Amino acid sequence: MSAMKLTILGSSSALPTSERYPSAHVLNAHERLFLIDCGEGTQMQLRKIRIRFTKINHIFISHLHGDHVFGLYGLLSTFSLMGRENPIHIYAPVNYDRILRSHLSDFDINLSFEIDFTLLSGNNPVKVLDDKYITVTSFPLKHRVPAFGFLFREKKSERNIIKECIEKYQIPLVRIPAIKKGEDFITQDGTIIKNEEITLPPSEPLSYAYCSDTKYFKRLAHFVKDVNVLYHEATFDMTKDDLAKMTGHSTTTDAAKTALGAKARTLIIGHFSSRYKDINPLVEEARTIFPQTYAAIDGKTYEIGNIS
Amino acid sequence: MSAMKLTILGSSSALPTSERYPSAHVLNAHERLFLIDCGEGTQMQLRKIRIRFTKINHIFISHLHGDHVFGLYGLLSTFSLMGRENPIHIYAPVNYDRILRSHLSDFDINLSFEIDFTLLSGNNPVKVLDDKYITVTSFPLKHRVPAFGFLFREKKSERNIIKECIEKYQIPLVRIPAIKKGEDFITQDGTIIKNEEITLPPSEPLSYAYCSDTKYFKRLAHFVKDVNVLYHEATFDMTKDDLAKMTGHSTTTDAAKTALGAKARTLIIGHFSSRYKDINPLVEEARTIFPQTYAAIDGKTYEIGNIS
Repeated sequence: MSAMKLTILGSSSALPTSERYPSAHVLNAHERLFLIDCGEGTQMQLRKIRIRFTKINHIFISHLHGDHVFGLYGLLSTFSLMGRENPIHIYAPVNYDRILRSHLSDFDINLSFEIDFTLLSGNNPVKVLDDKYITVTSFPLKHRVPAFGFLFREKKSERNIIKECIEKYQIPLVRIPAIKKGEDFITQDGTIIKNEEITLPPSEPLSYAYCSDTKYFKRLAHFVKDVNVLYHEATFDMTKDDLAKMTGHSTTTDAAKTALGAKARTLIIGHFSSRYKDINPLVEEARTIFPQTYAAIDGKTYEIGNIS
Repeated sequence: MSAMKLTILGSSSALPTSERYPSAHVLNAHERLFLIDCGEGTQMQLRKIRIRFTKINHIFISHLHGDHVFGLYGLLSTFSLMGRENPIHIYAPVNYDRILRSHLSDFDINLSFEIDFTLLSGNNPVKVLDDKYITVTSFPLKHRVPAFGFLFREKKSERNIIKECIEKYQIPLVRIPAIKKGEDFITQDGTIIKNEEITLPPSEPLSYAYCSDTKYFKRLAHFVKDVNVLYHEATFDMTKDDLAKMTGHSTTTDAAKTALGAKARTLIIGHFSSRYKDINPLVEEARTIFPQTYAAIDGKTYEIGNIS
């Protein structure tokens, strides 16, 4: 089982449909949940999919358009009604602290917990979170208002010691941490046992990048270089290039080109315009450029590193 | 088929559950739709139940608590994205015009239509709408913030002319409107045909009242006197009287007492606390005082004047 799992709560663009809610993703990394965007209905989707509210401590808001934010007031109210005490960390474009606080006060909401804001701005990637298991980097997108993508990277794990070798070479417990870090083992009679002989390399660190909403720009691929799973908006099909440019969105081709440029392993496209009843043609279009493309589906969980 | 139908979009209190959305009702009166409260997810429920967005021209907001309002930003955005041009009429407590406009501007939303506000205040009933078929009266509730209920009353229809009599008495077309209003018919030879002989009385005008959120107070029954269907919040069971008073809410007993005092025909209770997985005991409690009590169920449509 992968240590990183992505659940799509909403994959529509601004107009939700009966099957697609507005944007919201939950990334589970080592059993800690990161909520990415929070469109209207996020809390209902969380309940439906039975995701535990209390495990969410970090919320990432890509930009201040309603279909990415309007579920946040309800979610925060619900946290409060449930008696939450742990602070919540919100990463959002500058000004959102003011907007959110003023709106909560307009609605007589006194939260039972603190909000710890990280405000996003600027034209370069910024590491906004760094903990035991992962780092999160925000990077600028190009939309009608300031918008940011987020790159979640698992840290490199330690090497895995081969259990049989512990007995075989009589390795004392105290030596194991160093061996996991890559040191050789020296037996009591002075024999050097090479690290590679008694350990296995750790699995490759996993990574996930969220890019929505944005029009195509070349530098974006560089921001998400070598990512395992790239989620990229594809609001429009390839024939609607002008409309995409005009509205600051991407076509299937744009999403696929960025995935290709980034050498991503897998591309998930979403944020579909409500005009598309059938999403398969959009996936097929993207696959002509980037074969490992899949569609975002509300309620579906994708194992990062193992999507098919 | 009744000329007034009520569809419940959401019947939870502040914490939505997997089965109950926050407050929102749609009243269909003579094929015009009145949206009453607009909790988070209202637009998704409208889509799911296949209610046509374009038929909604009037939105009534009972009070400025999130579980009654947080679906409005998304709904208005959607109206706009769909190219709506007709103005929307919003009836809401004072200040909401300022709050709504400031919030829409924070989110870069330029609506394609005008909002026509009617701001509610004061301690007495006020007729806020009067059209061909119905009147709507707002009246004060007692909650933690200013809150208002709404009473929708169908106007008395004209009498129905008995088709066979038109031929029998050779009634000219030009006389029919007056006869429908109650006038007798005088034949060419001067015979007076009593109105009651050639017409049938119209069906009784229907009415619907929405009372949420409120604690119990005696005068409320007076505001909704003789209503066909009273929707009244019953957040708590009868044992939680103190909690109800403290939070400005009602118990099942409170709702039933108001229905009884008002001589309502039917009571629908809703706005249930998420602590109740099974609603039947709440309905049973209310029925001990007011037998014609039913539970609000998300997605269900009730024919006013014909609920069972």
